[in-house]
Amino acid sequence: MMLINGAPAESIPATDRGLAYGDGVFRTLRAENGEPLHWTKHFSKLADDCAALGIPGADEAQLLTETRAVAKAHAKAVVKITVTRGSGSRGYAPPNPCTPLRVVMSAPRPPLPHALDGITTHLCRLRLAHQPALAGIKHLNRLENILARAEWNDPEIHEGLLLDRDGLAIGGTMANLFIVEADQLLTPILDRCGVAGVTRARVMAFAAKSGIPCREEHLPLQRVLDADEVFFVNSLIGLWPVARLDTRIWLPGTMASEISKALDTEDAALA
Amino acid sequence: MMLINGAPAESIPATDRGLAYGDGVFRTLRAENGEPLHWTKHFSKLADDCAALGIPGADEAQLLTETRAVAKAHAKAVVKITVTRGSGSRGYAPPNPCTPLRVVMSAPRPPLPHALDGITTHLCRLRLAHQPALAGIKHLNRLENILARAEWNDPEIHEGLLLDRDGLAIGGTMANLFIVEADQLLTPILDRCGVAGVTRARVMAFAAKSGIPCREEHLPLQRVLDADEVFFVNSLIGLWPVARLDTRIWLPGTMASEISKALDTEDAALA
Repeated sequence: MMLINGAPAESIPATDRGLAYGDGVFRTLRAENGEPLHWTKHFSKLADDCAALGIPGADEAQLLTETRAVAKAHAKAVVKITVTRGSGSRGYAPPNPCTPLRVVMSAPRPPLPHALDGITTHLCRLRLAHQPALAGIKHLNRLENILARAEWNDPEIHEGLLLDRDGLAIGGTMANLFIVEADQLLTPILDRCGVAGVTRARVMAFAAKSGIPCREEHLPLQRVLDADEVFFVNSLIGLWPVARLDTRIWLPGTMASEISKALDTEDAALA
Repeated sequence: MMLINGAPAESIPATDRGLAYGDGVFRTLRAENGEPLHWTKHFSKLADDCAALGIPGADEAQLLTETRAVAKAHAKAVVKITVTRGSGSRGYAPPNPCTPLRVVMSAPRPPLPHALDGITTHLCRLRLAHQPALAGIKHLNRLENILARAEWNDPEIHEGLLLDRDGLAIGGTMANLFIVEADQLLTPILDRCGVAGVTRARVMAFAAKSGIPCREEHLPLQRVLDADEVFFVNSLIGLWPVARLDTRIWLPGTMASEISKALDTEDAALA
């Protein structure tokens, strides 16, 4: 089900700057029985990302109403919210004022791979570029993710590890990365590339609340390979422990298990 | 006027990957009396850019027919051609096979600033990221161009000079850059960022044919400031000499004038 600027529709103007330039941002989130999970965090991130690009933010109450409306089409839904700068005169200059476009769509939550024992991952050859002006933002310029994801077809491989141009681990093609070193959680600093997701923030908040040391750091690939545990998180999958990266194999770890349970417990309390 | 996959239409599916991820490429070109200028060069560049992203190329005869159809709506037209990977399943993995989307639209050619004496330019603060996998391609991930273009509102400023993260001059927000040093033409190497446009290639071809030394080089900002002449080119504007960049002022130069006349002569022969 889909709402465009609040009305049932399935198409957008071909002059929209989201198509022309990727001039917008998006969110993907879970909803249960018509209620989006972690709405406040997702809306807050959407608003921050819009502000970073100078796109007027959406009205929260309106967007929540639309999200609920599309979410209730499926008991367990994935909702995608896209906000673009809208249509405007030709050329890169942002129209001022602009009329943003909102697309809110839902789909049934897809079956997720059984990942308790961990997933097999691919070390991506594509290196992420450093663009501090766009780092952290979930914007619509995602060709790097597409090129990285196109590196493998093997259905047994569920995610790819992305490094930046300096060889630092940044995240997955669609998820954030954590590693465990001697009972400490570490996650990459995302001030030059990568997307700072809501579930990453939830893990950091849980760690703070639970007295688990957790820091953002620059993490060269070797730190990942040497880590006791490695896992990916995002709003759709929750947590995926990494069992394999090329020839490196990890056994299921206690930290990933604890964090995964904590995320599930939070979700269950909301659903 | 607009054709979408060959049929008159003004909207695209909201599930298109061009919107979702900027997963596509585009061209902007001039047409006179229904005939696109430098069609073969533009189609060839479009095909190369599609190939670089793994998007099946459009059929040349079909695309030319569509381009002529929209172009004839205006005696002097600007035609924009967009090709995306089309709609597909959720997620970054490119659908295989995919069904590309074609949008071909025209508008009257806008009045261009009178620029014989040169334009005033802005030195952009945004630095272009290095992404060799996407460098040179005119893809739909253009947030860097938008952020750079958003740095000024002054209508007297017609273009901005973009540097990369190393301080090398790369081009304008919408045009390619040439400088003149002692009767030699120099243009930035575009293997880490920037777009390698058709008019840039035409200038290089004209230089080769006319015995004007012309090379691609790494050009630190100081080389631009010290140059005898500086100019921008693209398919819509032709050639814009730079008269001013911050406090640096250039008088009209003979090389820019010669190249500009050569481009106009080629265009006039085609129109």
